[in-house]
Amino acid sequence: MTQKLVLSIDAMGGDAAPAMAVGGCELASERFPFVEFLLYGDEPRLAPLVAQTRYLKSRARIVHTPDVVTGDMKPSVALRSGRKSSMRLAIDAVKDGEAAGVVSAGNTGAMMAMAKIALRMVPGIDRPAIATMFPTTRGESVMLDLGANVECDANNLVQFALMGEVFARTVLGLNQPSVGLLNVGSEEMKGHEELRLAAAQLRETHLPIRFHGFIEGDDVPAGTVDVVVTDGFTGNIALKIAEGTAKLFGGFLRGAFSSSIMSKIGYLFARSALAKVRLRTDPRRYNGAMFVGVNGIVVKSHGGTDALGFANAIGVAVDMATHGFNDKIKAELARMGVTAPAPAAEAASG
Amino acid sequence: MTQKLVLSIDAMGGDAAPAMAVGGCELASERFPFVEFLLYGDEPRLAPLVAQTRYLKSRARIVHTPDVVTGDMKPSVALRSGRKSSMRLAIDAVKDGEAAGVVSAGNTGAMMAMAKIALRMVPGIDRPAIATMFPTTRGESVMLDLGANVECDANNLVQFALMGEVFARTVLGLNQPSVGLLNVGSEEMKGHEELRLAAAQLRETHLPIRFHGFIEGDDVPAGTVDVVVTDGFTGNIALKIAEGTAKLFGGFLRGAFSSSIMSKIGYLFARSALAKVRLRTDPRRYNGAMFVGVNGIVVKSHGGTDALGFANAIGVAVDMATHGFNDKIKAELARMGVTAPAPAAEAASG
Repeated sequence: MTQKLVLSIDAMGGDAAPAMAVGGCELASERFPFVEFLLYGDEPRLAPLVAQTRYLKSRARIVHTPDVVTGDMKPSVALRSGRKSSMRLAIDAVKDGEAAGVVSAGNTGAMMAMAKIALRMVPGIDRPAIATMFPTTRGESVMLDLGANVECDANNLVQFALMGEVFARTVLGLNQPSVGLLNVGSEEMKGHEELRLAAAQLRETHLPIRFHGFIEGDDVPAGTVDVVVTDGFTGNIALKIAEGTAKLFGGFLRGAFSSSIMSKIGYLFARSALAKVRLRTDPRRYNGAMFVGVNGIVVKSHGGTDALGFANAIGVAVDMATHGFNDKIKAELARMGVTAPAPAAEAASG
Repeated sequence: MTQKLVLSIDAMGGDAAPAMAVGGCELASERFPFVEFLLYGDEPRLAPLVAQTRYLKSRARIVHTPDVVTGDMKPSVALRSGRKSSMRLAIDAVKDGEAAGVVSAGNTGAMMAMAKIALRMVPGIDRPAIATMFPTTRGESVMLDLGANVECDANNLVQFALMGEVFARTVLGLNQPSVGLLNVGSEEMKGHEELRLAAAQLRETHLPIRFHGFIEGDDVPAGTVDVVVTDGFTGNIALKIAEGTAKLFGGFLRGAFSSSIMSKIGYLFARSALAKVRLRTDPRRYNGAMFVGVNGIVVKSHGGTDALGFANAIGVAVDMATHGFNDKIKAELARMGVTAPAPAAEAASG
C-alpha cells in the first residue's frame, strides 16, 4: 500500500469542528502513512490547529472556504447557498478527481443532496443508500439503507442488496457474504409488497449473491446474515433502537456496579474485561456511514463524534478507496447485464 | 380487590404446554387470590397437573377441548378447523361473559383472527393492535402496534395512540402520559405521509392526550414518551431489534466475565447487583402482549416462555380487567364524540 491516496475533508462539519476534524486527520495520518489530506474550511482557524500536529502537518493542504453548511440547514437551502461551503468544495474535489473520497461530520441531508448533484449516481443504480457496519454476535455485518430513502421499491432494495454484497465481499473481505431482507415474521404478516417482489428478484438473479431470504429484527444483532437490506425508514429506526438499547443496558450496568461496596469491588476486578466489551460496542468504532450508489466515495461521520471516531470514518473511506469499491459495483452491474446509459442520457439524469 | 375475577386460559398453547400453562396459573393463583381459572385443553393431561398444585386446584375448572391450534397453522385454517380448539373456546368464554379475559401462549396469528371474529372490535376502533410494555431508562413505556397491521393509515395510528394513552393512564396509573409517533429524524427525511397526517390529527384532537410529537428510534429505550405509536411492521422489527441487542450485550458480558480469573472474581463480588439488572431486563417480566381494540381482554404470552413468564402474562390480563380497560376506551371514544354504530351495522361488520 505504498501508493498515495488523497482524501478531501470537510473540516467544518460536526459539533466540535474544526478541532475534532483536524484531530481525527492527525490520528488517521499516523494510522495511514500513505494518505494525504485536503482540508476544506476556515483557513485562519485551521492553520494553527494543523501546525500543532505531528503527522498531519506535512501531509495536509488547507483550502480556504468562506461558507459553512450548518446542522439545521435544509438540503435545498444548502444546495443553493452552499456552493462555496467547505462541504460542497470537499465533495467537488472528488468530482474533479483531486481526491479519492470525501469525509464530513456535517449535515447528513445536505451532504446527500450535494453528493447526488455533484457526483451523480453510479450508472445502473437509481438511488443512493446510507450503509454502516455494526457489531453482532458473530462479528460484524453491514446494513443499508439507514435513511436516504423513506420509501423504497423492489428495484431499489435489489440494488441495495447488490451494493451491500459488494461492500461485504471486497471491503470486509468476506467470502460469499449472505444477504437478508428485513421483514416481519409472524405467520399472519406477509410483509410489504415490495419486500416480496425484491425477494423474488434476488432469488432469480443470476448474480452470485447468496440470498438468505427474509430475516427478522432479532436476526440483525444475532448476525444471521452479513448484509441486512431494508428501506431507509425501517433501517434508520432499527439502528437507533439498537444504539439506544445498548446505551440503556450500559446505564443499567453502571447503576449496578455503583450500587454497593461489593459491586464496586467487583467492578475493579472485572474492569479490564469490561473495557473490552466497551471497546467492542463503542459507537466510535462503527463511525462512518457510507453513501453507496453515488459515483464517488462519500463517508458521513456522526456529528457528535470525537477525533477517534472521525479517524475511524476516515478509515472507512480509506478502505473503500483502496478496494476500489465503486469500480467493483460497476463490474457487478456489468456482470448482471445492466449497461450504463449513454453519456448524454447520464448527464441529463444528473 | 375482594371481587372474584374469572380468566379463561388456553392451556394447550406454547412450546412447553400444558405443564407450563398450569404452572403459570399456579403462580398466578398464589399472586392473585381473587382470580379463578377456566382451563381449556386436554382434560386427561390437565387433570393430573392441576391435582398436583397447591393454590390452583381449588380455583380451576378444566373444560375439555378435543382440538389444538398448532404453531404453524395459518390463521384462516385455524379459524375453519379450530372451532373446538382450546384457543377458540377460551376466547369464546370471554364472548359469552364467562370470563373477564383470556390468556394464551399459542399461535399469534390464529389468536388475533379468532379474537377479531369472536369478540369483534370495540365500536369506534377500526383495527386491533398488539401492545406491550418494555423497560426504559426512566421506567417503562408501552408500544403499539407490534405486528397486527403491516400497513396503517393515519386513523389507525390515532386510534392506537388513544388506546395506548388509556392503557398508560388507567392500567399503568400514569398521570397524563405522553404519546409519541415513531419516525425518522434526519432533516431530509420527512417520514411517511400517514405519520404526518396522524400527527396533525393528534395535535388538533380535543382529547386530553399529551402528544409529544415525533420521536426517533433512540427515544424508545430512552423512555422519552410513555406511549410509542407505530405501524405493526416497524413496531415488530423495533421490538425484536431491542430484544436481540439486549441479548447481544448480555452475551458480550458473559464472555467478559468468564475471560479471566480476575473477571470471574469480579463477577462473584458484583453478582447480586448484576442479578438486579438481569431481573430488570428479564423478557419474562415483560411477557404478555395485549390485543387492544378487540372487544374483550386478550393477552398473548410468548410461546417459548416458562411458568413465571406465563404468570406475568396472566398478571397483565388481571390488571386490564380490574382497571376496566375496554370500558375506559369506550368512555374516551364517547368523549371524543365517536359514537358506536347501531347494533345491526356492528353485527354486519363482524
